[in-house]
Amino acid sequence: MKAAAKKKAAETQLEVCKGSLGVVETREFTFAEGPDPLKLESGETLGPITLAYETYGQLNAEKSNAILVLHALSGDAHAAGILKEESTPGWWNAMIGPGKPFDTDKYFVICSNVIGGCKGSTGPSSLNPQTGKPYGTDFPFITIADMVAAQRHLIDFLGIERLLCVAGGSMGGMQVLQWVASYPERVRSAIPIATALKHSPQQIAFNEVIRQSIMGDPAWRGGHYYESGQPERGLAVARMIGHITFMSDQSMEEKFSRKLKKGKGHFSFNFDPDFEVEGYLHYRGASFVKRFDANSYLYITKALDYFDLSGEKLIGGHAIDTRFLVLSFQSDWLYPSYQSQEIVRLLKRKQIDATYCELKSTYGHDAFLVETEGQGTLVSHFLERTYTGAVNGNGNGGGNGKHR
Amino acid sequence: MKAAAKKKAAETQLEVCKGSLGVVETREFTFAEGPDPLKLESGETLGPITLAYETYGQLNAEKSNAILVLHALSGDAHAAGILKEESTPGWWNAMIGPGKPFDTDKYFVICSNVIGGCKGSTGPSSLNPQTGKPYGTDFPFITIADMVAAQRHLIDFLGIERLLCVAGGSMGGMQVLQWVASYPERVRSAIPIATALKHSPQQIAFNEVIRQSIMGDPAWRGGHYYESGQPERGLAVARMIGHITFMSDQSMEEKFSRKLKKGKGHFSFNFDPDFEVEGYLHYRGASFVKRFDANSYLYITKALDYFDLSGEKLIGGHAIDTRFLVLSFQSDWLYPSYQSQEIVRLLKRKQIDATYCELKSTYGHDAFLVETEGQGTLVSHFLERTYTGAVNGNGNGGGNGKHR
Repeated sequence: MKAAAKKKAAETQLEVCKGSLGVVETREFTFAEGPDPLKLESGETLGPITLAYETYGQLNAEKSNAILVLHALSGDAHAAGILKEESTPGWWNAMIGPGKPFDTDKYFVICSNVIGGCKGSTGPSSLNPQTGKPYGTDFPFITIADMVAAQRHLIDFLGIERLLCVAGGSMGGMQVLQWVASYPERVRSAIPIATALKHSPQQIAFNEVIRQSIMGDPAWRGGHYYESGQPERGLAVARMIGHITFMSDQSMEEKFSRKLKKGKGHFSFNFDPDFEVEGYLHYRGASFVKRFDANSYLYITKALDYFDLSGEKLIGGHAIDTRFLVLSFQSDWLYPSYQSQEIVRLLKRKQIDATYCELKSTYGHDAFLVETEGQGTLVSHFLERTYTGAVNGNGNGGGNGKHR
Repeated sequence: MKAAAKKKAAETQLEVCKGSLGVVETREFTFAEGPDPLKLESGETLGPITLAYETYGQLNAEKSNAILVLHALSGDAHAAGILKEESTPGWWNAMIGPGKPFDTDKYFVICSNVIGGCKGSTGPSSLNPQTGKPYGTDFPFITIADMVAAQRHLIDFLGIERLLCVAGGSMGGMQVLQWVASYPERVRSAIPIATALKHSPQQIAFNEVIRQSIMGDPAWRGGHYYESGQPERGLAVARMIGHITFMSDQSMEEKFSRKLKKGKGHFSFNFDPDFEVEGYLHYRGASFVKRFDANSYLYITKALDYFDLSGEKLIGGHAIDTRFLVLSFQSDWLYPSYQSQEIVRLLKRKQIDATYCELKSTYGHDAFLVETEGQGTLVSHFLERTYTGAVNGNGNGGGNGKHR
């Protein structure tokens, strides 16, 4: 592309994102190199480790305005703004930016990817330094606690002692809870959204079917398929299952009802997709195969299933002063509201400052990504109160009533 | 087996089924032979057609006590009692038998299999008379209306002009509704259970994922696998998906919670099943592969998705005097209660005699098979009132107040 055309493209991108962050950049941070790898929950070690991350806004002099935002299963570090030469804004663009709930005029927002993934961080598709080839299923098993332990290195590297807030939905919410469990003194406040202390058997069951679909595809080859190509059919079916669980009965009815695929006047009486909803799932499955690694899907779903901070595991005997805003959505049947309520009950028993809200929505689990208005208002007020230190009469979290 | 041992085995079987029907037999009825095949909704024809069926109890002289019971997706004609050399009773054994809700001391109960299936009736695994080989995907597409049209031939053959009742759950319930739509004058009463006038996009979506899982298995070979063997992996995953939808979040929690598989003291940190719920799904998947034909699963799920008796299609302009008992279950999220309520609303608009009850249960969609007590009481009273002709002051359905 010529310079003029490039400039024009960039301007168009900025136009799209008016009132937004504009063009952002994904960075990489590498640690656990050489003789000092990260010790994992499984007992194995991993290193070197690279984490992809993005930051938005400016860290203040007191380093008291840093917010860590964490993503869901197939998400990435690109939470807001747009990347050069791409046109889609980040996955939480409506929530993060100047004047938005995670207000980048006030706060320094970090979004970190996870280990085990395939979006710039070390995972099964990364090169195994021992062999010079992709790890495949030689990659060690990772847990949510391992993901968070890796992120802690990133936060150290950024020079942040205490995070004003850790926030995220779904698996991002699990990481939020794990941050509190692992490093309570480093988390001033926490916003776990549409998440759970532990997976129910139904959630485990869906994940196991997803895994079986991937591993049942002969193209998976025991996880060593990086030369021959992804197990596309199995991975597409796996993602189709996922998509059903992300939506709700009602949102599917509103979006698709029983409409036939475009151009179809009647049933095909063959095994091609007849209905629009089938076409949508096929499209989602096919596009996922292009953007996500099958082994990462396996490793991360297993980490989700192993996660369990129930009982005394979230908060042990020690007193913590982390404040919580817990959010769930009415039509979310993958992470139903009762699971958020279990988090709240546990916090209340420990006399921790926790606000809970079940938000109205028909969007199912996807609501945490799309219902940004109601969610945004609550987040914005909660951050404001935490930052100004008005709560509990102490200012250790923030800016003594001054906004900057 | 020697005669004495055989006799002993039979006695043991009868012992198991005390107060039950004892040993029953599956029969076959063949029609649409030669130049007069069945014309299908797709425009294609099928013949000869064999239907597997069972009967329990005695048809009375007036032929007014016949009840047709219809099964769900993977069910069969074996609804009650036990078959010789098998030990598992029929799928609705708790509902059908002497003194049971479908009381075989009073009623003549018929259970018919469906075309497209693989349980003794003509389906894709049957021999194609044109080639002498199994049809595979050369089998014509069938609809619920086609299944019912075939059953109508069986009812003719049994010499029954008017059925006292047609009853069934899930796909059985769809056949019930289709019987009313196709042959209203031949149905005195109808009991559709845990069913719908039409599949929602969510129901279609699950079925499409099931089909993609089967067809994505290279062993499916375009449906012509009868020499090489079933697409086992794909079919097992398909059935695992199905099983999740048959249960409820709560019933899975009660049955499995997060218990680890027997013998496991800790997580495996590999991709083997860790949790009991995973082991259960694997077991269900593996056993399904042994008993059900993959192509039948494809054809029948497509028939379910095409089914649509909404609007004027269930009952057109004509008056009908069929009585209805419509049942649904609280925790059934595959066929949620609102779908049964849509049936009832439609009936009420047409001023048809309809009773509706949503039964308490935590068993999800499986409830129609296992919650036989509450269901049974309602069915028993409904049949009694229909049979004695007490309702509407006419006795055309039954026995003038006398039980025989």
